[in-house]
This record gives sequence, C-alpha cells and structure tokens, in this order.
Amino acid sequence: MANDKPARRPKAETPKGFRDYFGAEVTERKAMLDAIAGVYHRYGFDPLETSAVETVEALGKFLPDVDRPNEGVFAWQEDEADWLALRYDLTAPLARVAAQYRNDLPSPYRRYAMGPVWRNEKPGPGRFRQFYQCDADTVGSGSVAADAEICAMLADALETVGIPRGDYVVKVNNRKVLNGVMEVAGLAGDDKDAERGIVLRAIDKIDRLGPEGVRALLGEGRKDESGDFTKGAGLNEAQAAVVMGFTNAKRDSGAETVARLHELVGRSVIGAEGVDELEQIASLLAAQGYGPDRIVIDPGVVRGLGYYTGPVYEAELTFQITDEKGRPRNFGSVAGGGRYDGLVKRFTGQDVPATGVSIGVDRLLAALRAKGRTQGESEGPVVVTVMDRDRMADYMAMVGELRQAGIRAEVYLGNPKNFGNQLKYADKRQSPIAVIQGGNEAAEGKVILKDLILGAKIAESATLEEWKDRPAQVLVDRADLVAEVRKMLEK
Amino acid sequence: MANDKPARRPKAETPKGFRDYFGAEVTERKAMLDAIAGVYHRYGFDPLETSAVETVEALGKFLPDVDRPNEGVFAWQEDEADWLALRYDLTAPLARVAAQYRNDLPSPYRRYAMGPVWRNEKPGPGRFRQFYQCDADTVGSGSVAADAEICAMLADALETVGIPRGDYVVKVNNRKVLNGVMEVAGLAGDDKDAERGIVLRAIDKIDRLGPEGVRALLGEGRKDESGDFTKGAGLNEAQAAVVMGFTNAKRDSGAETVARLHELVGRSVIGAEGVDELEQIASLLAAQGYGPDRIVIDPGVVRGLGYYTGPVYEAELTFQITDEKGRPRNFGSVAGGGRYDGLVKRFTGQDVPATGVSIGVDRLLAALRAKGRTQGESEGPVVVTVMDRDRMADYMAMVGELRQAGIRAEVYLGNPKNFGNQLKYADKRQSPIAVIQGGNEAAEGKVILKDLILGAKIAESATLEEWKDRPAQVLVDRADLVAEVRKMLEK
Repeated sequence: MANDKPARRPKAETPKGFRDYFGAEVTERKAMLDAIAGVYHRYGFDPLETSAVETVEALGKFLPDVDRPNEGVFAWQEDEADWLALRYDLTAPLARVAAQYRNDLPSPYRRYAMGPVWRNEKPGPGRFRQFYQCDADTVGSGSVAADAEICAMLADALETVGIPRGDYVVKVNNRKVLNGVMEVAGLAGDDKDAERGIVLRAIDKIDRLGPEGVRALLGEGRKDESGDFTKGAGLNEAQAAVVMGFTNAKRDSGAETVARLHELVGRSVIGAEGVDELEQIASLLAAQGYGPDRIVIDPGVVRGLGYYTGPVYEAELTFQITDEKGRPRNFGSVAGGGRYDGLVKRFTGQDVPATGVSIGVDRLLAALRAKGRTQGESEGPVVVTVMDRDRMADYMAMVGELRQAGIRAEVYLGNPKNFGNQLKYADKRQSPIAVIQGGNEAAEGKVILKDLILGAKIAESATLEEWKDRPAQVLVDRADLVAEVRKMLEK
Repeated sequence: MANDKPARRPKAETPKGFRDYFGAEVTERKAMLDAIAGVYHRYGFDPLETSAVETVEALGKFLPDVDRPNEGVFAWQEDEADWLALRYDLTAPLARVAAQYRNDLPSPYRRYAMGPVWRNEKPGPGRFRQFYQCDADTVGSGSVAADAEICAMLADALETVGIPRGDYVVKVNNRKVLNGVMEVAGLAGDDKDAERGIVLRAIDKIDRLGPEGVRALLGEGRKDESGDFTKGAGLNEAQAAVVMGFTNAKRDSGAETVARLHELVGRSVIGAEGVDELEQIASLLAAQGYGPDRIVIDPGVVRGLGYYTGPVYEAELTFQITDEKGRPRNFGSVAGGGRYDGLVKRFTGQDVPATGVSIGVDRLLAALRAKGRTQGESEGPVVVTVMDRDRMADYMAMVGELRQAGIRAEVYLGNPKNFGNQLKYADKRQSPIAVIQGGNEAAEGKVILKDLILGAKIAESATLEEWKDRPAQVLVDRADLVAEVRKMLEK
C-alpha cells in the first residue's frame, strides 16, 4: 500500500540559517576581498587556504561565545574514528598549520586567509550560520612591532576598499593593562577566573549597555529589557570603581591616556608592561605616519575572546547610519583582533607568540553599500533576440562577434515565439541593448539596435526635450554590428 | 588519579584526505579561476554562490560513482530535525536554487559557480575529499544552442587560461544517439536499466580499458589486474557488435561521423533525433567559427553520470605528458558536462531543461603547470633587516615608505640578535633585496641594499665575468631608499 503513494518531492529550500548569494552580491564581495588581498600582499603576507573540515580535537573550543562552550560547531563522527567539524573561524586552523608545518614555514610567518566559516548557532535576522572572514596573522613574533604592523595594515585596507580617512579609527588597547587593573582591584588569583571573565565581557559590551549596564554587571548583576537576569561579578564599590576608571581612561591625546593608565595600574608589573607596550605601538605607528587620526589608544576596547594575551585592536567606522528605528547611530566595529600567545602551544607545548586581525566581511560590505562605495548592479549583457528560429546560427554568429570583441553578450535561448517575452527577459537582465534582426533586415544586410537604457528613460519622462535628438532605436549595417554596439554603450 | 595525568596534546594534523594550500598554490588557482570567470561573464553568465551546507533531501543522490550509492557525502543530523550535508558538486545546489527562486530568476538562467565540494570517499594519492569545481550552466533552455554555447565557452576558457589552440579538443556526443543504439541492440525497455548502466559505464572507461576491456564488460564481465571481477552486461555477440560499432563511429570529418551514426541508430526515433541535434550543434558552432580544430563530434564520449539526457561534452587536452612510469600519455580530460533535463523536475514536478559544464580545477591547474603556463613562485618581499633593536621605529618607517610606493616589503619581526638568521629568513621568503642599516650607516644617513638574487647567482658561479661590474651590495642615501630599491628590482 505504502508503495502506491507518489514519492514526496524534496523541498527546494536552503537549510535554516544559510543563504544564497546572487550576481552582484558575489562580485562585490570578491572585489572587496581582492582589494584587501592586495594590501596584505604588499605587507608581505602570504595566502593560506586550509580545508573547511578539521578534526574536532585540532579545532579546540575557542568560540567567542563562552557562555555556550559546548555549542557552536557543526560536527560529525567518521566511521568509528575521529570526530570532524566545520571550522568556526580561521584562527584555529592557522594554529594547527603553524604547529604542523613548524619546521618548513618561515618564522615569523605572515599569512592571510579568506573564506567561509560555520557556526552552529540559532539563526536570526541578518545572522547566518555560514559567513565570510578575512584574516591576517603573524605567527612567531613576540614583538609589538608585529601588532603595530597589523594595525597599520588594517587602516590601509579600509582606505583601499573605500572607507575614507576620518570615517574610521583603529583603536588599540592591551590586555596586560586590564590584567594590571584586575590586580589593583584584587582580582588577580587563579580562583578569580570566573569573575575576571564576567568583568571582561561586561567591558566588551559597554557600547551596547552603557556605563550603568557595565557597572551593574560588575556588581550584583543586571536585568535586561526582556527581564532576563545576568549574574554579575560581585565586586565591591572600591573594586568596581577601579574597573570603571579603566573603561573611561581615554583622554584627548595618547600621552595623556598613557599617563592615566599608568596611574590606574599602580604598582602592577604586568600592568606597567602593558602600558609600555601601548606607548611603543603608538611610537612605531607614528614613525610610519599613522597618527591619532587613524589609530588611537583606547582603553574601552577589550575584545570578548578569552585567549588574547597582549595588545588588542578594533576598527570602528565613525560615520553615522540610521538604524531600524530611524535613529542615527555610529556604524561601529568592522574588524578586530589581538595577540594570542597560547593557541599554537596547545599542540607543541612550546611558546609561539602570534597576533592577528579578522575583518567582518559582511559588515564591511554593508558599510561600503551605506557609503555608496560599491556598484550595486552588475553590467547587464547585450541581448541578441531571436526573430526567426531557423536562423539561430546567424544570431549565434552575432553574439560570437560581440563576445570576441570583449562585449558581454547573450543570444536569447528561451522559446522565441513571443517577442515581448524576449524584451522582458532583456529588461530582467538589465541589458543595455537589444539586437534585432527579422527577415527584412536580414535580406538588406541590416540589424536593429534598441537602446534599452534610453528607452527606459523616455518611458519614464516622455516629454523631456533632452531625448528628442537621440533615437531609441537605430538601423545599422550588419557588418558594423560590433562598432555600432560599442558606440551606443559608450554614450 | 586520572586527573594527575598531563592533558594529552591535540594532534596538529589535517583530517585524512584533506590538505592545505600555501602561497602560490592559492594565487595560481585564483588567477586561473578569475580568468575563467571573465570568459563566463562575457558570455552573460552571472555568479551564484550557494552555501556549503544543504539538506540531504535537497541534494539527492546523484554522485558520479553509482557503484556506491549510499556513500559519498559528509552528513549529520540537526537536533532531531533535518539531515544536513556538505555539497558533493555544484549542480545539485543549482537545481535546488532554480526551483526555489523559479519566479524571480531570469529564464533562461545562465549562472556560473566556483568553489569547493566535498566527497566522503576513501582518500588516495592525489585524491582529496575537498576539491574545487568551476561550473557554468544554463537552466530553462531546451535549445541545443545552449549546449553549443557552453562548448564554445569551454574552448574560449581553455585558451584564455593558457591552453593554446591545438592542445585541446572539445568532444561532443549525444545520449539520445546512444539510446538509439541501445534500442537497436534490444536494450530499450525499463527492465534493461541495469544492463544499460553497465554499458554506459563500460563505454565511459574506453580510454582506460581499451576496446577489449569494454567488449568484455559488454559480455560476461572482466577481471582486472588485481584479480577483481566486474560483472558484465551479458550482451550477445550481435548486441555487443552494435555497441562496439558506436564506440568507434568517429570518422575523419563531422559529416562522415554523422552519416555513420545515422546508419547505427537505424530506425530508432530517439537515435535519429540525437544525430540531428549533433548536426545542429556542429552547424551553430561553425557559424561562430568554432571548427573541428576545436570542437568535434566524437561518439566515444558518453560521460558516466546517469542523469544526462541529451548532448554530452568533454574537453580533452591532447598534448603528451610523461606518466609515473616514464611513458608518454595524453593528458586527458579536464572538463565535461551535458544536458540534464530531470534535476529541477525533482523539486517542482515540471520539466526544466538544463545543460552545463564542470571544469576540474586541479587537473586544469596541473596541465598549466605541465605546460609552464603558471608562475610557480610568488614574488618575495623586500626584507628590511633589524641591526639595532632600539631603532625599530626607523626600520618600520623604511618598510612603510616601500609599501606606500607599492613595493612588497617586510621588516624582520623575529629575534634580531643573530643577523645570519635574518638573511636565512630573507632567503626562505625568496626576497630580492635585503635592506640593512647599522649604527654607522644611520649616522651617515645611508642604507645598504643587498641584491639577494644577484648574490645567489654569484654564489653559484663565482668566476663569471658577467657579474663583475654589478655589485651585489650598494650603499645609498636613506632619502633615496624607494628609488634605489625600485632601480634594483627593475634590473
């Protein structure tokens, strides 16, 4: 009986949280990544492409969302063997590569990587489970010159893709300074790990929660708008004051900020080391001409990831956009990174210092669109229409000539019976020109070129004087097809 | 007790059957794909990027290796929900997209796609479980003009990436012709599905097995070198003769081949239709100037995939390479495809004709390397060495100037104590020039430029007269750094 049921058709759907990218969406992203790769290349970084699949063991658990340490990856078990997973970022695979090829790679090893990563998270609006990252890292250098270099490269990359100077700022901080502040606040011991984690994540959210929200999380905790309560770090008044002092330590000049940080870290050795490193980074950048109009010391930046050990940095776009509620707000962060000296050591047991940045590809693309810096539409093809089904060879010869001349062109390949459908197709393809040749034109050795862009303009405003001298359609010699099409395209 | 054991370190290894791509391997592939994308764009094809993950239901089971229908994909189950899988090709996702967006996409829809696909197969030498494909397909056109166009585009793509005319041939055949031959051989009915499958796969292997091997598979079966026996189709002498006649039906000219095929398909309606389509394709291509020096009718091409329904095509490189046993052999196939009219229908129940090609990216890259058509090595950076750790800002200023001038450059970021290590590093980076400035040079406002390419040549052949006028090392003004480096690079 069951066999008599017609087979159920499969659903034509992307899995939840995944999406497809069409046409200009693909080419825009590619153009942006190519431009960034050019900058990375000039800085001496080499490309690395690892596979999407890693062993779960090699990946480790370094997802940003430490509140849910057991979730986040797509994983499956090989037949009674290893567990495999899709990479959730490009840093974990780099750490594996740096360990696996440590005898062959140059040291320090500068590499960049671009590609999709996967997160097994609950999808939401604009939140997908596959997205692009674009990373650059230097493995094997403990020098803060490596951190400074990445900050400079990030500034160059942003300007190269079309974010003008003044519309972005790269903010630099140092986890060691924060650790010094923690010491001063009495949060230094191993037994204070949980409290330090809460403090770190609270500071990281200051842009969203405001100082009051952060202060609440430093103390007893905070109830959010939905009524959910997040437990706080339980600091007393004096401890919280030290930490809050850190969050607003930024002054008008780098030197003043450094002086303020020196006060805050008091006699903490690690704290003083962190402040010194910040000073060095600022002076190395100044020597290359990267002043505070592009890169600033900002204690407000801590980055959420637990594995950072030294300098951390973040690129923020400072121009305003209108949010979904119509309010103006700063565009915000599009890239971030920092120094992580422990990831390679997981594999080798030896200290291998590393630092690197990850650009949020989709956010940066959205920023470029907001600034009108990308071409939203791709160039449509010239469409050679089919008036006479039996003369397909003639139409293919035309399209062949156009393509050989480097002009994007198509012959209509649908059912040619209804000519209106062919023009609708050309419209959907954003075609600039339709080429038409019926029997009469063929007999006379002619073709008709229909200017579809002009046609659309005339349709919009038929009375405009400006179009009167420009015909929307011309009859030209078949032999001049390429030259006449080119002329019309250049108008 | 168990807790006292030191935690086992994770293994730094790619999963079995996966690999990493470094430096020039990445850029070479990218350059090739960019060139192909340029051709596809000119032909009016739009890019499409689907995600790596699809539902198992949407993917269906259309893997080439029909001998193992239940293997082949990496799949996992979402929490009590859908089974998800990594795509195993780019055609199945296209069929899903064509069905999902059928009301929005232009029709016909020409699209190209490039990216990795995954096969859960036993890895072997040179056989990986993640590899690139590069596809172009036209969905929604039943016209053989669509097939002809793809063949022309394939020829253009091969020439554009660097395979000269004469070194490749695109072979075209038609499954309908083969179906006609099957009819004549008495293998037409639904109950003969298994036999037809065996015949199809046997013919597809003719290059590897030779006519005798194919003949054996048409009859009782064949024992291979390892002693494994493959069961044959069980055809009798007369049936096998008809099929074998088809495999060697190719004649010197397309017209003669077509005549021979007409004889072979006899009174089979589907067979005659197939031969007519081949004639049409040949004449459409001839109209665009694609003669038999580039595209030929060749009944030897059948393509292994079960879902093809009409024209099939394959690009073969005709130049010889030396195989692992030192014997010359033709390079062989680098791309193939055909018409598949049933894949979209799976979802919609409606006929949606489609045709398309897939380029084997790794094989084509290997061919370009064999022909010396790719640059195996990437351009190394100028390396600014560090003589004096305290003057890092000076060195970073130098490297900054070089980069601003568009010159690929690095400052050495390792421990600068051992200067020999810095030069070894420059060597590993294939650096053309080392920039050196010690305290003396700094005091005099000078830098030393060491020509590392010349240095390597002199080291190889120290007595050569030709080098005597060209110093391997020059002292130049610090202010002229960029100009002098550029001069040395241009030599």
